[in-house]
Amino acid sequence: RCFMKEGKTVAKCVIGIDLGGTSAVGAVATLSGEILATETIPTPQEGGIAILKALLELVAKLSKGRELQALGLGVPGMHDLEKGICVFSGNINWYQVPVIDYFQKKLKGIPVYLDNDAQVAALGELHYGAARGYRNFIYVAVGTGIGAGIYIDGKVPRGSSGIAGELGHMVMLPAGLPCTCGGQGCLETLASATALAREGQLEASKDEASLLHELAAKNDGKVTAKMVSQAYDRGDRAARQAFERSMGWLGVGLASYVNIFNPALLVIGGGVSLAGEKVLRLVREKIDKHALQVSRENVMVTTSALKDKAGMYGALALALAGEPEDQWKYD
Amino acid sequence: RCFMKEGKTVAKCVIGIDLGGTSAVGAVATLSGEILATETIPTPQEGGIAILKALLELVAKLSKGRELQALGLGVPGMHDLEKGICVFSGNINWYQVPVIDYFQKKLKGIPVYLDNDAQVAALGELHYGAARGYRNFIYVAVGTGIGAGIYIDGKVPRGSSGIAGELGHMVMLPAGLPCTCGGQGCLETLASATALAREGQLEASKDEASLLHELAAKNDGKVTAKMVSQAYDRGDRAARQAFERSMGWLGVGLASYVNIFNPALLVIGGGVSLAGEKVLRLVREKIDKHALQVSRENVMVTTSALKDKAGMYGALALALAGEPEDQWKYD
Repeated sequence: RCFMKEGKTVAKCVIGIDLGGTSAVGAVATLSGEILATETIPTPQEGGIAILKALLELVAKLSKGRELQALGLGVPGMHDLEKGICVFSGNINWYQVPVIDYFQKKLKGIPVYLDNDAQVAALGELHYGAARGYRNFIYVAVGTGIGAGIYIDGKVPRGSSGIAGELGHMVMLPAGLPCTCGGQGCLETLASATALAREGQLEASKDEASLLHELAAKNDGKVTAKMVSQAYDRGDRAARQAFERSMGWLGVGLASYVNIFNPALLVIGGGVSLAGEKVLRLVREKIDKHALQVSRENVMVTTSALKDKAGMYGALALALAGEPEDQWKYD
Repeated sequence: RCFMKEGKTVAKCVIGIDLGGTSAVGAVATLSGEILATETIPTPQEGGIAILKALLELVAKLSKGRELQALGLGVPGMHDLEKGICVFSGNINWYQVPVIDYFQKKLKGIPVYLDNDAQVAALGELHYGAARGYRNFIYVAVGTGIGAGIYIDGKVPRGSSGIAGELGHMVMLPAGLPCTCGGQGCLETLASATALAREGQLEASKDEASLLHELAAKNDGKVTAKMVSQAYDRGDRAARQAFERSMGWLGVGLASYVNIFNPALLVIGGGVSLAGEKVLRLVREKIDKHALQVSRENVMVTTSALKDKAGMYGALALALAGEPEDQWKYD
């Protein structure tokens, strides 16, 4: 795994990058998966080529003095994986960006792997986290939006244009709030961190004696998802209302997923999963109520083991082992 | 494909049976798939072994004078396909019935294939109907309940206990009507033929001058799904209300499926599909409103080509080619 180059031993390495709307987290690892260094950079807000350039610089920095063998990228949005193109990503302002082509040209033709960020995080959990050894599991990232990575019968379902698995856009309230996708009342509008904060804001405004109202007052009147969770832990009624309503919707949505995919494991990741046991309790309650007996008796519900590092680990796994479809073979 | 037996030429054949709650439809075909005869029998209402015996008689009758090579069975309910057992079927009153074992013992060990009725109907559409050549499609049977057969990336998703794809039990109204599955507000409670009749009954009782009320009066006051469709075609307002509400829910549910599975084709089968274009119009409207742009632009929505024979054709295909997972290879 090492070779001589101009008299020096140059170690081979791979790089994985988890690209998000606000930051990109990169890691460089040996070919046996040992992490050598990590680095986080802000995501250029102008989008487009500026992001590609920033990522390329990150790759150069992480691989300095090493021989890069492969690059794995987790990118939010919808991708055409056959063409290696990001078709659309609202979060990072990308539209028809030829990701793989760009990096392969800049990186001497080494293998470059691209996939949806939630799918890559699922891969992280499969290799290094809560889903080790599972052939049937769903990873749900509940943050600003709701994304999912799905493994069924050891495979990632892709669909006719490669964008299957958009679980955040399951319709829960046909006449509900408009969603970023152009639809209405999607799960994402009811159960994301954004929705949780909005429900908290509503409850705080209704109850001026609440702790939530007090916390918001110290933040220009603005309620955050984290505030709702904190106030809930201190027994605040307003926070409990908001939390139970929002996470109750999450549970109902996940009950439907359980009926549809019959997974052995459901991993809740993303910012909301940091609330831990109290999210799990509400989700399990709804699954018990709404999922089919055989399915609910066979599913375990847990929170992410890798937390906000799931995407980074997954991107490394992608670089190390290639197509996520074949990943379970490596366990 | 023929051989001599005691001086006579005995043609080889396969049999496919589509078992339903009220009747079982069997067909016998040559090894090249040419149908030689069909036969329908009532399903014994006492369930259990009585049904197995009736099916065995049907097999004997259809295969008389022929050499049976394989049997394919479409059975409603949830099955353990590895063990060849029907785990549970409310429709036919089966619980832990060892279907494959029974027929293999009675039929000299020939291959016997079992699958869920909607999945088998999907297989029929794949081989002989609307889904020929598709690797990504969903067949939805909308009748007494709602079942589905799914092909994604050329495979049937099975899940950890083999009961994935229960699309009729997607939760649409968490506080809605109780469902036969034990849950509440499932799609099945809102958009099945049963639900359509119930909505029709409601509208007819609210409007005594309606055609629907008049039709019901001639049927002991009882509205059927077919009546709602007929009155709708004659411009009845009460029928239109019921039809649009119920089939609107179907459309919303199917929009979610489109977001989840990204199919190239959606085939609506079962009794409700006989209403044809007016169901398609409502479903397409909701998909246009709620599905993601890339997914909705890539999906075609149509009604079953084989109508109530989809299950029978699928059962024959199952007998002819074995596991439904590998069926697309034969196209």
